[in-house]
Amino acid sequence: MSLQQDINVMADQAVKASRSLARLTTRKKNTILEAMADELESRREIIKDANKKDIDAGKEAGLTQALLDRLLLTDERIDGMIKGIRDIVVLKDPVGQEICSWMRPNGLEIAKTRVPIGVIAIIYESRPNVTADAASLCFKTSNAVILRGGKEAIHSNRAIAAALQEGGASKGMPEHAIQLVPTTDRDAVRMLVQCVGKVDLAIPRGGEGLIQSVVEHARIPVIKHYKGVCHLFIDKDADLDMAVEITENAKCQRPGVCNAIETLLVHEKIAPEFLPKAAQRLKTRGVELRGDDHARELVPDMKTVTEEDWYTEYLDLILSVRVVKDVQEAVDHINHYGSHHSDAIVTEDEAARKIFTQAVDSSTVYVNASTRFTDGGEFGMGAEIGISTDKLHARGPMGLEELTTYKYVVSGTGQVR
Amino acid sequence: MSLQQDINVMADQAVKASRSLARLTTRKKNTILEAMADELESRREIIKDANKKDIDAGKEAGLTQALLDRLLLTDERIDGMIKGIRDIVVLKDPVGQEICSWMRPNGLEIAKTRVPIGVIAIIYESRPNVTADAASLCFKTSNAVILRGGKEAIHSNRAIAAALQEGGASKGMPEHAIQLVPTTDRDAVRMLVQCVGKVDLAIPRGGEGLIQSVVEHARIPVIKHYKGVCHLFIDKDADLDMAVEITENAKCQRPGVCNAIETLLVHEKIAPEFLPKAAQRLKTRGVELRGDDHARELVPDMKTVTEEDWYTEYLDLILSVRVVKDVQEAVDHINHYGSHHSDAIVTEDEAARKIFTQAVDSSTVYVNASTRFTDGGEFGMGAEIGISTDKLHARGPMGLEELTTYKYVVSGTGQVR
Repeated sequence: MSLQQDINVMADQAVKASRSLARLTTRKKNTILEAMADELESRREIIKDANKKDIDAGKEAGLTQALLDRLLLTDERIDGMIKGIRDIVVLKDPVGQEICSWMRPNGLEIAKTRVPIGVIAIIYESRPNVTADAASLCFKTSNAVILRGGKEAIHSNRAIAAALQEGGASKGMPEHAIQLVPTTDRDAVRMLVQCVGKVDLAIPRGGEGLIQSVVEHARIPVIKHYKGVCHLFIDKDADLDMAVEITENAKCQRPGVCNAIETLLVHEKIAPEFLPKAAQRLKTRGVELRGDDHARELVPDMKTVTEEDWYTEYLDLILSVRVVKDVQEAVDHINHYGSHHSDAIVTEDEAARKIFTQAVDSSTVYVNASTRFTDGGEFGMGAEIGISTDKLHARGPMGLEELTTYKYVVSGTGQVR
Repeated sequence: MSLQQDINVMADQAVKASRSLARLTTRKKNTILEAMADELESRREIIKDANKKDIDAGKEAGLTQALLDRLLLTDERIDGMIKGIRDIVVLKDPVGQEICSWMRPNGLEIAKTRVPIGVIAIIYESRPNVTADAASLCFKTSNAVILRGGKEAIHSNRAIAAALQEGGASKGMPEHAIQLVPTTDRDAVRMLVQCVGKVDLAIPRGGEGLIQSVVEHARIPVIKHYKGVCHLFIDKDADLDMAVEITENAKCQRPGVCNAIETLLVHEKIAPEFLPKAAQRLKTRGVELRGDDHARELVPDMKTVTEEDWYTEYLDLILSVRVVKDVQEAVDHINHYGSHHSDAIVTEDEAARKIFTQAVDSSTVYVNASTRFTDGGEFGMGAEIGISTDKLHARGPMGLEELTTYKYVVSGTGQVR
């Protein structure tokens, strides 16, 4: 069979599986998830052996240390996958929930009801743990999933997927509920995201290049988990100590993640007092500051920021700094240069708060808190499949509920029009 | 300027307008909508003159009578546009509504809040009234809209858009809130749906060809309002009289619309009693029946149905008929051949009802009612921009709420992680 035929067959199988999945009870799904976790546990050595093949091949291919680290499955990381599945067992199943319902004057009862999306393709890069995380989230929400991981992790992904499939099958998981694209051929991704009418949604998880390539080829809906160029704006009426704490936390607590800030915007009225304090604190954490002219007047040992810096997700201990004349200029900067992810204001002023929260066009807007809370766990959703920077269907942390859609169930007593 | 530059400028202007729109109060928006309606009223003759140009050009170009009829703006249709806008004035504004909110153990307050989508492109065909309907729905929800109508309606669309723009401007509508692509160049559509990061959503309204072309070119989200191959399934435990009434209504009350049925599925146990009765009733309404072998045994004067019939949206007094062995076979037929729009079961049996409503993968599933109720007005939403056959973001009738998305507004007292 050609690759195209293989992908079509996988998509058809997934559609068929999705029909059975839609009718599983929550109890049954949880039993199956437990079996998946158990099977990962009992295949721990097999998975580590498979991972060793990937690591050896990666070393041979000259992968960077950072990439090899992402690829590596330690016992701790396998424990993490297993715990991840068990955590999903206890989360509330959104499928079947009634979102709202009402009765029409003619007696028709309309119930807007949560249902699975159907078939979801997850396209990701080198971390093999995504295989287990994505598969279990999709399964819990009764979606069939087609997984396409990075080629460098193929042995690990196959071993993990086999554990999930066979563990699940032992407790009656519908066949083809979880499928892994077996080939590393890049064309498979394109074909997958062109399965109109079969694959309902593609979620690419990875760097800009991967996401852009998926968007370029997709003829089906895509939800993007794009970069986080997050901002913190210190308003003129900010509590100074709070502003310094939040700045430090939002930049330094974990600089390599998408909800860490990359740019600090400071109201010109508070900048002379705030910036030197903040700079001093950030210096103790080893942060490199890159400021505009005004900021550099106040903190002379900053580097000079460039236009490109404003667009950059450093994922590192670097922070660009701009002094703005008011909240509106801060909002304009964020909407222009930002990535619609997470942005925060520190202020005690109600008017500034209102302007900022209304006008900043991002998935999550904070008042007097660190941007680092944009996360399924921190939001209280439990596990997440990622953080959407898109506006349609799901925005911000995507948990179980965001892996569902709805249908209207309308009940009558013979009504006609 | 090149066409590409023109489209980029329009998109940039729309983004800028969307920022102002997001901050308008409901009261202000309603005043502007009233002014649009008034301006349409006072430009009635100008609009009819413009329409005459389109009609004359259409006749010259040899458009069919059906197309010319869709193009025609009578006084009654202009009244309809004006009333449509006034109806939208009284609808509740979803923007700013709190969908839900909760507090985290660390004291963070998370509010999931409705916000406009941003910039919406509406791509439609020959009916010029869509210009007013779509523009006013988008405006009420604080979205900037870029309208692209059919080339045969260009004069009418320009006249209507000018009335809306100038009427709105007289009451302070942000500039470029409503834009009409001034050219009829087909490339404009492609460019519009590739404005990544500027245009947030495309909604094509029209025939299969238009929708497929938009999907093919789009690099932004598209919500499709696709054909309606709707089904009615008469279960073995149906109330016979109700089943006949619903069959007649769902097929005949307005056969040319997407929520009329195209296929009748009948349980084999009730078919001998039901089908002759239904056929007799449908005959009085001039419906042509096309049946499978089993159906034709029971009603011999039916034509023979073909495989292609099952996929066909007749939009006419034609109905294909199949006898099935149980509810599962009906469900399988619907999921295979249907268009995920509206499908109904007539039954008194709780088990069949449950299987059908759970397993039929359509935007709206009916029990003991006609499919003809899938409509914003009938659902009590007021005006609608269409009926989505997609699963993501919005499914079924799309009213004002479906023209919004959400953001999280998180309020703290200095929380850090």
